[in-house]
Formats: sequence, structure tokens, C-alpha cells
Amino acid sequence: MTGSTPARTPALFTAADYRGRMERAVRSAADAGLAGLLVAPGPDMVWLTGYTPTAVTERLTALVLTPGHDPVLVVPTLEAPDAEHATGASALTLRDWTDGKDPYAVTAALLDGHGRYGISDNTWAMHLLGLQRTLPDSSYASLTDALPMLRAVKDAAELELLAAAGAAADATFEEIRKVPFAGRRESDVGHDLAGLLRRFGHSQVDFTIVGSGPNGANPHHEVGDRVIQRGDMVVLDFGGLKDGYGSDTTRTVHVGEPSEEERRVHDIVRDAQEAGYQAVRPGVACQEVDRAARAVITDAGYGAHFIHRTGHGIGVTTHEPPYMIEGEEQPLVPGMCFSVEPGIYLPGRFGVRIEDIVTVTEDGGRRLNNTTREMVIVD
Amino acid sequence: MTGSTPARTPALFTAADYRGRMERAVRSAADAGLAGLLVAPGPDMVWLTGYTPTAVTERLTALVLTPGHDPVLVVPTLEAPDAEHATGASALTLRDWTDGKDPYAVTAALLDGHGRYGISDNTWAMHLLGLQRTLPDSSYASLTDALPMLRAVKDAAELELLAAAGAAADATFEEIRKVPFAGRRESDVGHDLAGLLRRFGHSQVDFTIVGSGPNGANPHHEVGDRVIQRGDMVVLDFGGLKDGYGSDTTRTVHVGEPSEEERRVHDIVRDAQEAGYQAVRPGVACQEVDRAARAVITDAGYGAHFIHRTGHGIGVTTHEPPYMIEGEEQPLVPGMCFSVEPGIYLPGRFGVRIEDIVTVTEDGGRRLNNTTREMVIVD
Repeated sequence: MTGSTPARTPALFTAADYRGRMERAVRSAADAGLAGLLVAPGPDMVWLTGYTPTAVTERLTALVLTPGHDPVLVVPTLEAPDAEHATGASALTLRDWTDGKDPYAVTAALLDGHGRYGISDNTWAMHLLGLQRTLPDSSYASLTDALPMLRAVKDAAELELLAAAGAAADATFEEIRKVPFAGRRESDVGHDLAGLLRRFGHSQVDFTIVGSGPNGANPHHEVGDRVIQRGDMVVLDFGGLKDGYGSDTTRTVHVGEPSEEERRVHDIVRDAQEAGYQAVRPGVACQEVDRAARAVITDAGYGAHFIHRTGHGIGVTTHEPPYMIEGEEQPLVPGMCFSVEPGIYLPGRFGVRIEDIVTVTEDGGRRLNNTTREMVIVD
Repeated sequence: MTGSTPARTPALFTAADYRGRMERAVRSAADAGLAGLLVAPGPDMVWLTGYTPTAVTERLTALVLTPGHDPVLVVPTLEAPDAEHATGASALTLRDWTDGKDPYAVTAALLDGHGRYGISDNTWAMHLLGLQRTLPDSSYASLTDALPMLRAVKDAAELELLAAAGAAADATFEEIRKVPFAGRRESDVGHDLAGLLRRFGHSQVDFTIVGSGPNGANPHHEVGDRVIQRGDMVVLDFGGLKDGYGSDTTRTVHVGEPSEEERRVHDIVRDAQEAGYQAVRPGVACQEVDRAARAVITDAGYGAHFIHRTGHGIGVTTHEPPYMIEGEEQPLVPGMCFSVEPGIYLPGRFGVRIEDIVTVTEDGGRRLNNTTREMVIVD
């Protein structure tokens, strides 16, 4: 049988929810001058239809959304029975194709040969090439380029799910701070984090970063065999999916009493995170959140050591638009959800990062992570 | 932090192995008239370099292979420290890019603006569009179209790993046939299968199909809430990755004594599987394996109920070329590994499928699954 099995979103939404999302997506596409949207299995498809194929393979599955037509899901015949059970299936038409047939011809018949289409970022290149070959006068833009905010504004039910995922991540932090750190490997603490996330309801663990001592200075370090020492700073960054929606939080703890410098760097990052959070309100450009956090770190003399953007969106994935980065002028809209996660990384020594998920409300921001942002001392 | 974490291949191969694979890939590309290859994170990259990024995100990571130049891995700066630790890293040059820079410009500088390139099937469409935009006169073919047999012929170490994965799947079957079936849900038996695969050394479980009674007639059914009944046929199809290489085997068991028809259908499939296996030898076209298995089922009057191809390749994925399907004229080569898995599906009633992984030897085929192909009666 076939490839790996992605997480499925449980049936928390109705067919009417999915129909509404598909209608809004088609309107947004038309407003952006597109002839329609081509949606691949993955976050776009699960958000629009509730459908996740058992496995993503070389067999084409594609949702075709075009103004004036019902949504059509092109699907391999073998997978049609599964697709029929998706919550959103009653809001769309299935068009199945059998092994040996040309799925691009089936899809092309639904498209305008001269149109420009938005296509899911993660669509396989082989499928895009198949469509370009079949309709040489059509053109394509990645969905994130064409409609970056398609999934960015969350409805009330989505916010509830994101808040629940955040609370589960917070519960994980409250437990992990009680475990012994000194003398154990990063991978052991990572294993504890994964177990706790699952115990608090996550169906999928996406990352469990345990960056101790010098490893904390590499923001993409996950876990290693390093044995954590008394005197280490330890960056803990963990998250995944609970009921189909993401969590992502970071706290930096210290094993035993910190030095004066460690405490100072920690508190600069805490203040930067607070400043980023305070900048959140409707109408403010994303880049202002980055600027607010970065200014605190730059003013403290550590600007060269904050080597990534301040945040990213979260929803049915743990990493999506909007991005809190210099140059992103998209205004914040109530319902958007994203991380605010400044950091300082001192190569060969230690790193500090503090991260909350924040959602935009009518009059500011609301944090979905609420554990202490003061430095926690662990054993 | 970012997306989900794929399985890593343990360091079973040396930098020399990866260098050899990259050199062969470049030669194959040149022979096929390509200016080079663009390789995305996933099975192609792990096979060519041993590198799997922690997460596959919108940040471009791409291996560029062009004749006459050292291999170059384009990688986000944040991920460069991880990439440097890949076994194949000493056989390539890292070219990192930071957030805010244009990764397509970095990659384009390594390419001939008028060349035609093979590109990994699973490359994200957004990256292909970025390259097409940056180099409008370049062109691209999916790697499976351009070099379908790139990873198809396994070396001795790979065959040993595939045989070990097959043996672990066989051990799983020997245990699962002892568990109670009647009165338990399909999902319970699926859970047992996953646990057994892990117990016998799998790091990743890709699928655990338990198709009881009428559910067995849908070849893509995974597991459901159906309670298995005495008198059911049950299709068990399971596999995943052990030490980076795949397993995939199917047996169809019966709960209690089968009817005469059930036994007849089972034995037709067994004979079809044997005929497909017997057709395997160097130089024979892939489609001949399909034809040999299909002829047995067609001659027995069930041709309309064998609704999929006979097999697919297996290696660092559980689903890849070569395909045993009508129209595939690729000749078999010693070292190729693929499934032989005919089936008969009687809608609303039951299904039967029997599957082994088979490798091509100098004088025929060798099965990597060796549990009985006679019908097993379970409780």
C-alpha cells in the first residue's frame, strides 16, 4: 500500500461550514483576478472540505473551485469511497478517474485553457507540470502568493480549537518544569514533551525542541544526545495538532541559578515578546509586530543575535501566513492567529526564545498561551 | 516552530555511497538529455544525500546536480547546521540563504537559463513556480517521468535492509494470526498491527489495512469501527519503514471456516500471485507480471473484479516505480524490488488480496515475504 497517513480533522465542522469556506475562497479568487483555484491534499483541502486522503501519492487528487460552478473534487476511483465520507462531500461533486487514465485531461476539462489559477503551495510539481503540459496557455500562482490570507482569519469555532490546543501546550509546560533536567539527555526531555502533548489531547506532535546550553543558540536544533548540565539554559519549543488545530509555545528555563548575564538576556527577550504582543491590534501591519519586538532587542545591543522573523500564523498547520516579518504590510484583522517569538542566540553559549500564540481581537491581542514568562528554574 | 518531522534514514550508508549515487544520477540525467536535476526533501534527497530536513516548509531546500559541477545543497541558513551533519554532506557544497533573500535567485545562479531539468515529483508547486518565474526559458520534467528508474535498482546493502523489513512484516503476520478477531473492531486489530510492526523494528508505520467482510471489497479501506464477525474474510495489508526501507505485505484470513466460494476466490488470488511471481526474471517487461497475474483471475471469470494494477516498487518509500501495470514496457533488472499483489473485490460482500515484495535476481525472482499463502483460519 501507499505513503504516510496525515492527521485527519475530526468532524467538528458541518457541510455548511465547508460550503461557506469554498464560496468565500471562490469570491476571493475572482477578486484577485483568478479564473479559479486548484487545491491539493493537505491543509488547504482539509480546511475547505474536511477531506484528507489516506495517503498522498503520485495519484492526483485535486479540488477545483471556479466561479459559477459547483466545486469538483477530482479523485482516484479507488479513493472515491473515502472521499464520499468527508464532511464537506455533500457540498461538492466527485469526478473519479481510474488507473491508466490521464487525470490531467479530467482536470483540464474543468478549467479555462487561458485562465490563471491559484494552486496550493504544496501541490506536487509533477501535477503542476501535467496541467501545464495539458493546458499550455494556462498559468498558475501559488496560493500563498495569490491569496495569502485565505485561511488566516479564524472563525469562532476555530479560535476555540486553537485556544484548547494552546491550553494543552500550557499544561505540558506546567508538567515538564517538574521533571529532572540535569543529567538527562535532551532527547529524554523531548520524549517527555511528546508524551505530555499526547496526554493532553494532541493527536500529532510536530516538534519538541530541547536546546540546552550551546544547542539553544541554534534556533532549528531539535533534540540531541547532549546531556543537560546544571547551569544550562534550555530552550523548550513544542507543539502539534489537537483536534486538527495547532499549538506552538516556547519557554526558556534554567537548570539551577542563572548568571546575571543569563537573567539579563532572558528578560530582554521577555520584554521583546511583551512589546510584540502589545503591538497587536486590528489595522496594524504585520511588520510592526516584528519591529516592536526587534526594537527592544536592538536597543539592548543584541540585534545581530535575533536571526529570524518574529512570528508565523497557525491554524490547521503549525506554520502558515501571516508572517510577522519586515516588509509584510498586510494589516492585522480580528481572528488572525500567529506566534510572537523573539529570541537571542549567542553562538557556542546559549539561546533564549519566548513564544506565545496570539489572536487579534477587536481592541488588541489575546494570548492563547498563558504560562509564566518569568524565568523558570528547573532541577 | 514548523511542520511535521519525516523519518530519518539512519547512517547505514557512507559518504562514498552517496557520492556514487549522485554521480550515477548526474550521468543518467545527461544520458536523458537533461541539463541537471533538482531534488526536493523527501525520498529522492534522502537516497542521494542521507539528508532529511527537520521539517518540510515553504523555505526552499534543494539539491542541484549538474554535469561537471560538484553537487550543491541550497538550504535555509537556519537549517545549515543540521544539513552539515548529514552523512552525504562531505560529498556536496552547502549554499545557504537567509530569510528575506530570494532562494530562487540563489538556485537559478546554479542553472543554465535555457536548460531542461528533472525535478523531484514532490517538489512544492510554489518552488517550481519560483524557478519558472526566475528562469522563464528553463523547462522541467518530473523525475519519475524523466528518470523513472533512478532509485529502482537496489544495491546489496539496500536489499538486505528491504529483506529485514520484509522479515519484520512476516513476524507481524505470525503474531497477528494468533489474536482474536471475532467481536473486535477493525481499528483494534489495526492498532495491534501497528504495535507489532514497531515491536519488530519499524520506526514508521505507513498503513494498517483491516478490511473485514464487505469492507475488504474496497481496496483502499484502512480500518473502521466495524466489529469483525465470525464468517468474515479479513484483508490484512500493512507496512512501513524499518531502518529507512519499506515493508508491505498482504494476507487474507478467515474468521472460522470459509464457504466453498470464499475458499475458491482465495485460491484463485493465490494462484494469480504465484503466476505473477513466476513471471519475474531479468529482461521481462513490467507489464508481463501484471498480465500473468491478471490472466489467472480473468480465466477464472473474475477479471472485472481485479480493479487495480498488480504491483509497485518499494525502497526508501513504500510506493514508487517500477509499476507492474499494462503499458509499462520497462524491462526488469536484477536488484529491482516491487510488490506482486493481485486481488478480487466483490462489492458489498468481501475481498481477497495476497501480496509479497519480490526482488529480481539473475535467474528469476526472490520473495522477501515468506509467510504461508494458504488461507489462514483465525478466531
